[in-house]
Amino acid sequence: MIRLAMRGFKSILNVRLNLPLVLVVVVVTVCITSQFMESMNLCPTIRSERFAYKSKNIDPKVLAEIKRQWILDEGCVHGENVQNSKSGSNEQPQSSPYQHIDCSINNNDEIIDCLKHKDHEDDIYMPWNFIKRYFDVYGKVAHYDGYERFEFSHSYSEVYYDPQKEYHFDGVFLTFDTYNVEVRDRVKLVTGVEGVPLSTQWGPKGYFYPIQIAQFAMSHYCKNITEKPPVRSIYETGTMSESKWTLHNSECHVESVDNPERNSKVIMFQVPLSLSLGNGATLTLGNTVENEFSVDIKFITNGSLSIVVEGSDKKRYNIHYLTHAKKLIDFDGDRSIWYHIGSSASWRHFSRDIRVDLRKGVGMTKSKAVKKVKISIKKIVSLTVRGEGLIDNVCIQTADHMTHFLAGTNWILENQNKETGGWPIMVERRLEGFQSLPPGWHSAMAQGHGLSTMVRAYKYTRDTKFLPALRLALRPYTVPSSKGGVRAIFMDRFVWYEEYPTTPSSFVLNGFIFSLLGLYDYKMLLSSEKEAGNQLSQDDEAALRQATDLYNDGMSSLKAMLPLYDAGFTTIYDLRHYQLKTQPNLARWDYHATHISQLALLSTVDDDPIFKQFHDNWMGYTKGIRAKHN
Amino acid sequence: MIRLAMRGFKSILNVRLNLPLVLVVVVVTVCITSQFMESMNLCPTIRSERFAYKSKNIDPKVLAEIKRQWILDEGCVHGENVQNSKSGSNEQPQSSPYQHIDCSINNNDEIIDCLKHKDHEDDIYMPWNFIKRYFDVYGKVAHYDGYERFEFSHSYSEVYYDPQKEYHFDGVFLTFDTYNVEVRDRVKLVTGVEGVPLSTQWGPKGYFYPIQIAQFAMSHYCKNITEKPPVRSIYETGTMSESKWTLHNSECHVESVDNPERNSKVIMFQVPLSLSLGNGATLTLGNTVENEFSVDIKFITNGSLSIVVEGSDKKRYNIHYLTHAKKLIDFDGDRSIWYHIGSSASWRHFSRDIRVDLRKGVGMTKSKAVKKVKISIKKIVSLTVRGEGLIDNVCIQTADHMTHFLAGTNWILENQNKETGGWPIMVERRLEGFQSLPPGWHSAMAQGHGLSTMVRAYKYTRDTKFLPALRLALRPYTVPSSKGGVRAIFMDRFVWYEEYPTTPSSFVLNGFIFSLLGLYDYKMLLSSEKEAGNQLSQDDEAALRQATDLYNDGMSSLKAMLPLYDAGFTTIYDLRHYQLKTQPNLARWDYHATHISQLALLSTVDDDPIFKQFHDNWMGYTKGIRAKHN
Repeated sequence: MIRLAMRGFKSILNVRLNLPLVLVVVVVTVCITSQFMESMNLCPTIRSERFAYKSKNIDPKVLAEIKRQWILDEGCVHGENVQNSKSGSNEQPQSSPYQHIDCSINNNDEIIDCLKHKDHEDDIYMPWNFIKRYFDVYGKVAHYDGYERFEFSHSYSEVYYDPQKEYHFDGVFLTFDTYNVEVRDRVKLVTGVEGVPLSTQWGPKGYFYPIQIAQFAMSHYCKNITEKPPVRSIYETGTMSESKWTLHNSECHVESVDNPERNSKVIMFQVPLSLSLGNGATLTLGNTVENEFSVDIKFITNGSLSIVVEGSDKKRYNIHYLTHAKKLIDFDGDRSIWYHIGSSASWRHFSRDIRVDLRKGVGMTKSKAVKKVKISIKKIVSLTVRGEGLIDNVCIQTADHMTHFLAGTNWILENQNKETGGWPIMVERRLEGFQSLPPGWHSAMAQGHGLSTMVRAYKYTRDTKFLPALRLALRPYTVPSSKGGVRAIFMDRFVWYEEYPTTPSSFVLNGFIFSLLGLYDYKMLLSSEKEAGNQLSQDDEAALRQATDLYNDGMSSLKAMLPLYDAGFTTIYDLRHYQLKTQPNLARWDYHATHISQLALLSTVDDDPIFKQFHDNWMGYTKGIRAKHN
Repeated sequence: MIRLAMRGFKSILNVRLNLPLVLVVVVVTVCITSQFMESMNLCPTIRSERFAYKSKNIDPKVLAEIKRQWILDEGCVHGENVQNSKSGSNEQPQSSPYQHIDCSINNNDEIIDCLKHKDHEDDIYMPWNFIKRYFDVYGKVAHYDGYERFEFSHSYSEVYYDPQKEYHFDGVFLTFDTYNVEVRDRVKLVTGVEGVPLSTQWGPKGYFYPIQIAQFAMSHYCKNITEKPPVRSIYETGTMSESKWTLHNSECHVESVDNPERNSKVIMFQVPLSLSLGNGATLTLGNTVENEFSVDIKFITNGSLSIVVEGSDKKRYNIHYLTHAKKLIDFDGDRSIWYHIGSSASWRHFSRDIRVDLRKGVGMTKSKAVKKVKISIKKIVSLTVRGEGLIDNVCIQTADHMTHFLAGTNWILENQNKETGGWPIMVERRLEGFQSLPPGWHSAMAQGHGLSTMVRAYKYTRDTKFLPALRLALRPYTVPSSKGGVRAIFMDRFVWYEEYPTTPSSFVLNGFIFSLLGLYDYKMLLSSEKEAGNQLSQDDEAALRQATDLYNDGMSSLKAMLPLYDAGFTTIYDLRHYQLKTQPNLARWDYHATHISQLALLSTVDDDPIFKQFHDNWMGYTKGIRAKHN
């Protein structure tokens, strides 16, 4: 089968195909496969056509000429603009030999309209609107290189993850550097107090979802590794030298003062709270490049920070950050957005993605999902402070990832249950066919992500407060899911860590693997500490042994049970079909892609061939290459 | 989804749709589904078109008129002959708005040629030659009602079995009444001595394959139930009254004699063996209707029966049945075929399907498969006997099913191993990924078929010789497949009876279910005997308990494990993917159809909803209705 052949070919090259190769490959493909084209002997001219596909910067004129020549050679028509470029062609569309024929689907379950060549009985064409819904595939017409083609794809979800070296516990976590958790429409806002996302996925009220918070933290950790260092514009360092502060009236006051706490100059501000929001001491920013606003601030009284931004919709918006707002987030439906940031008697590093804050505000709804808002920021105009306090290091930058990473990690640290070691999820979870999980359930995926996040936080901060929390996070792995933990057993023989501790067990694959990656990160952290000559506490020695055992048990289950998730044309999300005697719960393409990435990662840390082999098979499914039938 | 809707609709009717309903349904389908047609507002005229589909005896002229009207209404073209019937149309094919467009498959894995409406971007058509190989579906252009359409089918294998009442142990076995074992090209011949098929499936030498022999026997048993009673032409009853015997020379002799053994008149014949084959005492038959020749015969010396037939190829063939032929079957490459029938000092009822014997002879090869031969029989011309013997009841009929059933049953009875109770299969069997099975392996499917066959034979003959053989046939169910039996265990908890006793176990689904049906037939036979007031022997009482236990254990395994064979778009043939950590071994469509029929049968004898539910889901897969993804 040609698609197999192609895969073979690519894997021989074992790199993204470069241009000339694509040229060869595709020409080969076309010559070998498309009988239709073969019969039209298009291969010689096709070559130049194909060349166009890959090279976006080729001169359209050259292409048009190639196509014109091709049309003259082959006498076939390829779209009107081209026709018109045909020398001496009339304006009528050229007569085509295709005529309608009825297609009876599965013995007249339905009848659709197809096309048939009037002279060739087997030269049948079926309509895309049928193929699309019947086979559940995807496609669209795409225009580029001054040329139009139909792009068919078997899956809507691409697999980007292709690790070139062994996964490392403090490195990038899968493709989390491509995640952008806070922009998801199921995230109501990034809270002003904790600086973490608030989820509305399973409840419009909004709740802290530990798995989402961990992914938020990890995504910023990974971006910090893979992205270029941030570009930063500094507007105030406490000197008032370059800064331009304007005061609303004579009752407002700012001055540069020495601050022993920080051992540097800072700006002291005093603005009566009687002034309306947005009035007070204003620092002009006028930044048209970056979106991440940050400042070091200490409020002495209640107060507020207000940012004025100019949106791509030409409107000016006021984003007010209040120490004592009534709601976490609010919007007046026009130009004003409010965030509650809470009061803190001490210095805090306050950092906000202004574009996210703007969109969450304008897109606010009472339902689960935040409205899609396209507004981007043309200019961050100014900062205005109210109340009394101290301020330093006002700057706007492209990103402040580690601040968000640490905000997420702190939430995880502070919200771990000191008894159970888990992160209870405080919303009811309904899974079709299972008893619903009342609020307070634990997830092995939360434990895994909690471990992976804190392992990185410890490596980064060396703050020992993470060590007991890490040890504690193992506990739910040892407690049966029926007793508040996440541990399940398949067929009395295979240990499993449940993403959802359902009755009966559901054995969700991707969550299980995430729980194993957490164990892996943790055991690798501790053993690397030992290798580095840092002696472990007795507790950590014990934790290392426990994490290793939990990991090994889970990995043997995974290696044994992986085939049960293979449907031969896609993967199965969980084993509810076995547990509930139903049809398999097939994984949608993005989960299938997650399965594939997870196997790719595991194949770098475990040399059992099953991971590479299943990775390749499952990758094939995204291109319609099914398992053989007998 | 419309296909679902249609299924719903049909199942409501719960009968083959009759004409007016089809009319409605299809019109609904077309109106609802085919956007393309909708946009062309074809529904009003479509109605009469659809009407044509189901009614084969509608007047083509009427159809042509309907079509002509349609074309005039809609201005679309449906095939040349129709064009020509268009009043005032020129002979040129009407200009069509469809033009070629390149389709890039899965990011340029290949490029194929599609069609696109010049004015509608999304109106794309893909070529059948791609759809067919990419999605592994089937289709062909079909002509009837003076009308042409393309018939698309998702599966090549229809499921005919739809039991209306509870399965009964002496009734029809699944769809075995549609089986025609002897014509399969893997059957070298039906042997002249035993009267059973000789298989070449796994070895060109040919061997007796108990499963095939049981299916041969059962198929005739079932045909005898479902077919009309045979039509019979009688040529000789021993009286010589109506018969016309011609003698080759004066040394040949025939006369009607009293036969005390049979207590009736029979024909005695004496023909010197010095005469060449085909010469001797000849009875003119001249039958142009039936194909099944049968005779009661007793050879006193060596001898032969020769049948002269006229083939549909106008050639005359001589089929010689010899008591002492060198080979089981032979062919001179032209007109003579030889079969070895062995000598028997006693009377035998000798019955042959002459068309099968002709085709096996002419199609003979040295390879595994018999050549496809299309010759049918225009006339059975004559019978000639040589040697000395007695002959009676020469007749030609449409069928002689119970003779073949009993021939098969006797082979099964006589070839059961009296120690193991099994039917050892004397060819090596290789299964990909498993250690190959050396000759002499046992199959749970052979045990099941053996039971089902002998149960029916006992019910039919009341011959007690079957009772110990039935009891003995249970033994391999109790012996591990590793120790020469067929018993395996899945995950230390589920008993399984192996079609192939592989290492590791392969858990083939259809063979397992056949093994359960054998147990079911046997336990139902014994319990029905008790209900009928016939006391069972102690041995049979014990066998009844044992068969019941084996059946119940197997059924609980089946109910638990059935979901593991569900791939969400087809079924899985066995569990080698779990055992060998490979991709699932998907069942090809005819095995999938077998799975469906087996579930249909089980749903009539076991009220667990799983059978009906999985039957319906699996039936859906044959129409492309997949399991949901999350």
